[in-house]
Amino acid sequence: MQRSELIQLIGQRQSFLCVGLDTDLAKIPAHLKNESDAVFLFNKAIIDATIDYCVAYKPNLAFYESMGIKGLIQLKKTMDYLHSLDKSVFTIADAKRGDIGNTSQQYAKAFLDQEGDFGFDSMTIAPYMGEDSVTPFTSFPNKWTILLALTSNKGAYDFQYIENKEDGARLFESVLRKSQQWGNPDNMMYVVGATKADMLDSVRAIVPDSFLLVPGVGAQGGSLEEVCRHGLNRDCGLLVNSSRGIIYASNGTDFAQRAAEEAQKLQVTMAKFLSECTNIKH
Amino acid sequence: MQRSELIQLIGQRQSFLCVGLDTDLAKIPAHLKNESDAVFLFNKAIIDATIDYCVAYKPNLAFYESMGIKGLIQLKKTMDYLHSLDKSVFTIADAKRGDIGNTSQQYAKAFLDQEGDFGFDSMTIAPYMGEDSVTPFTSFPNKWTILLALTSNKGAYDFQYIENKEDGARLFESVLRKSQQWGNPDNMMYVVGATKADMLDSVRAIVPDSFLLVPGVGAQGGSLEEVCRHGLNRDCGLLVNSSRGIIYASNGTDFAQRAAEEAQKLQVTMAKFLSECTNIKH
Repeated sequence: MQRSELIQLIGQRQSFLCVGLDTDLAKIPAHLKNESDAVFLFNKAIIDATIDYCVAYKPNLAFYESMGIKGLIQLKKTMDYLHSLDKSVFTIADAKRGDIGNTSQQYAKAFLDQEGDFGFDSMTIAPYMGEDSVTPFTSFPNKWTILLALTSNKGAYDFQYIENKEDGARLFESVLRKSQQWGNPDNMMYVVGATKADMLDSVRAIVPDSFLLVPGVGAQGGSLEEVCRHGLNRDCGLLVNSSRGIIYASNGTDFAQRAAEEAQKLQVTMAKFLSECTNIKH
Repeated sequence: MQRSELIQLIGQRQSFLCVGLDTDLAKIPAHLKNESDAVFLFNKAIIDATIDYCVAYKPNLAFYESMGIKGLIQLKKTMDYLHSLDKSVFTIADAKRGDIGNTSQQYAKAFLDQEGDFGFDSMTIAPYMGEDSVTPFTSFPNKWTILLALTSNKGAYDFQYIENKEDGARLFESVLRKSQQWGNPDNMMYVVGATKADMLDSVRAIVPDSFLLVPGVGAQGGSLEEVCRHGLNRDCGLLVNSSRGIIYASNGTDFAQRAAEEAQKLQVTMAKFLSECTNIKH
């Protein structure tokens, strides 16, 4: 999906919500657990219930890999289902990969290749190994790289705030600056955690035009309003993710209906901010 | 595998060689390519030919994931085969994972759980997200975390050498220091690239007792002798990986025999250094 198509989709749905499909067999409703395709059936119900309120889905690979090969078959079924829909959505493999150049090429093929099992639009990448670990993703035609900059967890304080002796830049700022040479706002986004919404000002000072994928709203404590105030640009420039707050809103037979309600609540707030703070109109 | 068992194995085999199973369908011999289990059959032949000269096998996940679910089935068959052998080996999932705490737990389960599809002894982890992204691996009973410190690729210079304004430590040194609080030499190793063998002195100054996994010998240009001189400690403390130099030594029908010869050459050098520089005897 091109940047212009993503922005158009955000306008159509009046939403920049990403639903995190972090589906954990231990947490899905009892009536689904014994189905052989439990994870896929859960995902399908969540997708059907929320697609009118969101623009993106983000399965975190860990939740599928933890079930072994069976879990990856559930992920493939989920992706096949998303690709079969008439309604457009942006898909994110939350994989946090990154390796030396020839190995990163294999990871890019694994998740982004349309001929492969998954065919995601984008994937998340860890920056520690630098340029040649990232460019195999940015050079993949018509796909997006979503580079970790500032994460939403406590451990983010261990290294991401270290100040560079040379120029005083914090590590996440060095990642934002340096990576400008590897991609551009048409093929690269950044992960910036919502639990530090005021840090979005520092991020926007370096990447004013880039889309930011913001996890951590809801269960992790981030506020949507704060994220909007600090993060929106004229093209929206945000994808705000919520996982547990939507997909586990209920663990009864009404889970999909409750997921829809939670997604819609966020969408209504997003619509308000889109009209107040961006050039995007309905 | 416990640290003492690994050291004992190194003594028995007179080797600290790790063979990287970065098996690429495009590069395996023509006579195997059309087999339905081509990757597994290739791996099995490499394992049978090299196991007497090495102590560890390290499949890089990217090469299996790039083949989709079929590739992971080949990896599972390879791991099942390794587990079925009478001969002991240490296994490393070169996965470079790392995510927020509850997600890293899922990754640990995916690769380390004996009840799961793979049951590796260890896995490689990226440090960017800090403590809670790493401790789910170090707290996994009887398993090892192998944290990226200094990698062997060109991109390592982008961030890993950034000096901390506060104490002058380079980022990889901060990773080595800080991570001492998350694990110990009995459950944590570090990746240190062989292309910078003199940097092993800086690494050993911080982690004198830890095992180091050293990739980059051979195809990536690192010298085994240099790595031994700068990296060995009295318990050996090194696992030196070679991938392409062994598994693709020939792409004819003699590939396994040629792999054995390349592995043995490294083993002979390693035996010499073990007797000269460590307390490990035959």
